[in-house]
Amino acid sequence: MSVPRPVFLLTDFGIGGYYAGVMRGVIAARAPGCAIHDLSHGIRPGHCREAAYVLEAALPFLPADAVVVVVVDPGVGSPRRILGLRLRERSLLAPDNGILTPFFEDPQAVLHQVDREDLSLPERSRTFHGRDVFAPVAASLATGLREEELGVRVADPFRLEIAAAREEPPGLRGEIVYVDPFGNLVSNIDRATLQSWRGDRRVRVSVKGAIVGPVVGTYADVAVGQLLAYVGSTGHLEVAVRDGRADTALGAGVGATIDVEVSA
Amino acid sequence: MSVPRPVFLLTDFGIGGYYAGVMRGVIAARAPGCAIHDLSHGIRPGHCREAAYVLEAALPFLPADAVVVVVVDPGVGSPRRILGLRLRERSLLAPDNGILTPFFEDPQAVLHQVDREDLSLPERSRTFHGRDVFAPVAASLATGLREEELGVRVADPFRLEIAAAREEPPGLRGEIVYVDPFGNLVSNIDRATLQSWRGDRRVRVSVKGAIVGPVVGTYADVAVGQLLAYVGSTGHLEVAVRDGRADTALGAGVGATIDVEVSA
Amino acid sequence: MSVPRPVFLLTDFGIGGYYAGVMRGVIAARAPGCAIHDLSHGIRPGHCREAAYVLEAALPFLPADAVVVVVVDPGVGSPRRILGLRLRERSLLAPDNGILTPFFEDPQAVLHQVDREDLSLPERSRTFHGRDVFAPVAASLATGLREEELGVRVADPFRLEIAAAREEPPGLRGEIVYVDPFGNLVSNIDRATLQSWRGDRRVRVSVKGAIVGPVVGTYADVAVGQLLAYVGSTGHLEVAVRDGRADTALGAGVGATIDVEVSA
Repeated sequence: MSVPRPVFLLTDFGIGGYYAGVMRGVIAARAPGCAIHDLSHGIRPGHCREAAYVLEAALPFLPADAVVVVVVDPGVGSPRRILGLRLRERSLLAPDNGILTPFFEDPQAVLHQVDREDLSLPERSRTFHGRDVFAPVAASLATGLREEELGVRVADPFRLEIAAAREEPPGLRGEIVYVDPFGNLVSNIDRATLQSWRGDRRVRVSVKGAIVGPVVGTYADVAVGQLLAYVGSTGHLEVAVRDGRADTALGAGVGATIDVEVSA
Repeated sequence: MSVPRPVFLLTDFGIGGYYAGVMRGVIAARAPGCAIHDLSHGIRPGHCREAAYVLEAALPFLPADAVVVVVVDPGVGSPRRILGLRLRERSLLAPDNGILTPFFEDPQAVLHQVDREDLSLPERSRTFHGRDVFAPVAASLATGLREEELGVRVADPFRLEIAAAREEPPGLRGEIVYVDPFGNLVSNIDRATLQSWRGDRRVRVSVKGAIVGPVVGTYADVAVGQLLAYVGSTGHLEVAVRDGRADTALGAGVGATIDVEVSA
Repeated sequence: MSVPRPVFLLTDFGIGGYYAGVMRGVIAARAPGCAIHDLSHGIRPGHCREAAYVLEAALPFLPADAVVVVVVDPGVGSPRRILGLRLRERSLLAPDNGILTPFFEDPQAVLHQVDREDLSLPERSRTFHGRDVFAPVAASLATGLREEELGVRVADPFRLEIAAAREEPPGLRGEIVYVDPFGNLVSNIDRATLQSWRGDRRVRVSVKGAIVGPVVGTYADVAVGQLLAYVGSTGHLEVAVRDGRADTALGAGVGATIDVEVSA
């Protein structure tokens, strides 16, 4: 028998409980030898937009044959569907609540509904499909099941409205879409958008009206304790405090406005 | 050489430290190729009853040949014993402080004391048996040691008093035994007890005297922000707030009373 | 192909984010079958001294062929070097910020600079070398690359000043170097120093001037709620509260003074 595909878990289960652990148990029981990895269990409860951001940021770095299981599922037990998305050699499982939105436009994406009850655990609760449906289905995919076998094709998935940065003369306006564990504020302004707008002009970044400064290269380009703006590791404009926390320094979180303007 | 049995860790080590990581190190060193899983490290420090609940809730979902190591051990370094429990093909290691109580009545359970000093690390501290005793013994079990080789049979393990729900006319009274990371309150009233008591009657649930409402199916059956009672994923009556936290909404935690009464 | 060496991750990424998960992804993609373990992600952000302590405490317990990756890296993106340290059969990767100081005096330690850009991910950010450099280099080491292939030898690494306990008549004075998740205070006074200083004398321990008591064996030697001093699992003098937290009880953390004096 061949080695199972590696499985990555992304949930809002938090770090104190055993829910992720019991999902590991189900997968390990049904796919012995499977490498099971925690991508993160720290999505804020029910925050689908945050899960979508993390998934989009992380996916390119995961193994080409990874099975990624996303359980951020405030609608668990309701008639909401569960989706299986094939993206080249990778497989993603998630509730049909918009978390997979970043991949819908990819011409390679193929979307199926999970409607094979025989793949679930024999007793299926109405409040913990991570354990009872997602984990056993992931184990099946890891051991060779193909997406076509999950259920019918889906053409009308639920889509999240994902805000794009926009020109708002005289500047470029975006918003904070993720706060990382260091308190760094990640925006929806990507490198290409920033570059095409600014050209060769010197710019100044502000968050919620508070001036951060020009766009620099990395933390060490400013003094300890200073605010800085830079293009971060996901290619988005970020704001941080060197050796500190920008979220508390600026009183800003997800949804805060970020502006780029030409500096004097 | 055959593949080691998978090992699951359940501790109160918290999520910030390295103690679970160093247990992984010891197991990986002695059982190369062993799949080591975190069941949870979020048991509240020293709370044996909580560990017993999580262990009972999770065990049925773990691989049939799992080795489960429980290190919630406020008596570490004292003469308290360490127990090895064989339950069909699974092996459980835990201090003799009652954590294994839920399994003592199982006719298949066989209990041994761990008294083979040669299985411990050469230098054995008096404050970290997770690293010095539990981890190496788990590695031995994972690689083929049988429980009979751990030490003498034990007939008198320490038992936790585990409160049962009881009829308290005109209602059924239980208590909260676990608060999950979402703030959901899990009680000791199980589905069978609830059903046999209520029969066809409409019932109303309250916690600490505050009315929650009838028993519904899942979160989506109430409006966002509303309290609800439902039979949760472990088959126990639970109380939650949809997209919120019941523990803070009700000011309730482990030990809080929960009552089921016939509604008017 | 042989099985990859096991990899252990030690970072300050915290427990909420996905940064450790994405490092796992990079390693799993480049070293299929590699066992990847979390040693800890709970180092306080940027606290190199704490990372050095944890690394020194944990290393002896890790597999003899472990690859250990330390990403506590406030200077990321600046010209700071990345170091590869060979210590017998183990390999350690860390920024050149002093984290590896505890091993520099080991006659077996061999230190190289990581200056092979071809080992990094093709696009290398300036703020997340954990993902773009440390993880792929770790995967290379896990799959057979030797340290000599990383880059030139290094003779002048950055060294942390690591405070040693000292005689300060009439006593022995040290400081707290680590607070564990239970709130236990770990000092820089090791067993040998303590023994050679005290001889057969009865001693009394205090922290920040507050008397803790004599040195006992383990938690169970004092009553619940009482302070105690004992030689802990890393061979250092520690202070705890039985079934409680010494850090809050004493208002003490890293850097607090600890004194041992002959008792009356």
